[in-house]
Amino acid sequence: MKLLLTNDDGIYAEGLCALYNALSLEHEVYIVAPEAERSAVGHAITIHYPLRVTKVKRGKKFWGYAVSGTPADCVKLALYELIGPVDLVISGINRGANVGINLVYSGTVSAATEAKILGYPSLAVSIDAYEDVDYCFAANFIAKFLDVLKDLPLNKPFCLNINIPNGNPSKIKGIKFVKQSKARLKEVFEKRFDLHGKAYYWQGAEEHTETDEDTDVLALKQGYITITPIHFDLTNHNSLKILKKHNLNFNLDF
Amino acid sequence: MKLLLTNDDGIYAEGLCALYNALSLEHEVYIVAPEAERSAVGHAITIHYPLRVTKVKRGKKFWGYAVSGTPADCVKLALYELIGPVDLVISGINRGANVGINLVYSGTVSAATEAKILGYPSLAVSIDAYEDVDYCFAANFIAKFLDVLKDLPLNKPFCLNINIPNGNPSKIKGIKFVKQSKARLKEVFEKRFDLHGKAYYWQGAEEHTETDEDTDVLALKQGYITITPIHFDLTNHNSLKILKKHNLNFNLDF
Repeated sequence: MKLLLTNDDGIYAEGLCALYNALSLEHEVYIVAPEAERSAVGHAITIHYPLRVTKVKRGKKFWGYAVSGTPADCVKLALYELIGPVDLVISGINRGANVGINLVYSGTVSAATEAKILGYPSLAVSIDAYEDVDYCFAANFIAKFLDVLKDLPLNKPFCLNINIPNGNPSKIKGIKFVKQSKARLKEVFEKRFDLHGKAYYWQGAEEHTETDEDTDVLALKQGYITITPIHFDLTNHNSLKILKKHNLNFNLDF
Repeated sequence: MKLLLTNDDGIYAEGLCALYNALSLEHEVYIVAPEAERSAVGHAITIHYPLRVTKVKRGKKFWGYAVSGTPADCVKLALYELIGPVDLVISGINRGANVGINLVYSGTVSAATEAKILGYPSLAVSIDAYEDVDYCFAANFIAKFLDVLKDLPLNKPFCLNINIPNGNPSKIKGIKFVKQSKARLKEVFEKRFDLHGKAYYWQGAEEHTETDEDTDVLALKQGYITITPIHFDLTNHNSLKILKKHNLNFNLDF
């Protein structure tokens, strides 16, 4: 397969490198990734500044294109300009899980969503750890997963969000197809003061409040590799159906 | 009502000012908005830098809080820290329509979505023009719309994406509840060279390719005020249902 790899941790991230190493023997692999970390940028795109592209080498060999923009910029620029059509776009391997509400903020997931928007199948891949991350198992899992991908009942362009537990692979309980959790995050803001006495705020999310075991949040916590098919249909169709039946008496002459 | 106003055009934007003027006589209105333009930032949040907050005056009177972050940051910071609970969050009035695929990239819409995530009802309001924008009619429309909002069959927290045609109000054909268009955008990248001979790329979207009249894109073009109820459920439930029935034969011992 002709593969495009990207991420939101930047072109020098270990997760991207692990994925390249696991996939480049059997596939034709291209890399277009942000020049530096762009996490939590959501589906931001760069329209007020031009994008710069730098060729990055590993050793003496060309390795990939570093882009001065966001993950979504990378996917657009790769598919329209730098690489052209591919068979599959893979975003990751992200350091830290991308489950539940966090999908909305995730650059990793947005890159995969962007591929689907442009008509290409895609995977977003994340690993559930920030320290002592075992990218090797996750990368090898994705390599094996590509072999079974064609047998899955999926319409193109699909977009799968994959999260992988960290640690001892023999403790992984299996693979589960689950929905995105929509449970609230426990969030915190902390007000601090700089050396000049001026206030600033840090924000952070503490924990998911999910209790439904059929969600990505809990299945991952329980030790499963989770797979969630993603779309970008933001219409609340149930609500729309009800609103359409409503007789809105509204005079626009005011 | 206690209202929180925000936007992605920045706290000094005319659309925000028009909204404030139209709403502040009858409602308790608070403003927390980006210190400068933050359009096309999607649902980005700021977690790697602290957020700064500046009080902004108009004349001698306190006007609102300017935040060094994104629209989604503003909503979080306002509801958690600066203002507390409100009855409704309104994001806008945005210069330029937010319909179709562009919802994914829109800071205006993401601010409203963020309110819904946090459990608050919200409106995203945009006007379909970049030049000679008549914010006055749109702001007055929203003021009138707030009176009928309680009669609409909506479960809280709802999020409505509202787009308003520009120009002669008497030519507006009515209000239409429609779905988000998912049609591809015609996009362009243009490669240019700077004064040092180094390449850079501009990206831009040209036109929607939509043909379905029951979408926000076409209804707005035809002269309707469009209203689309928005959710943040990214799971493709149809695909998930099919995947769950699939017997995935996958050996994790490799």
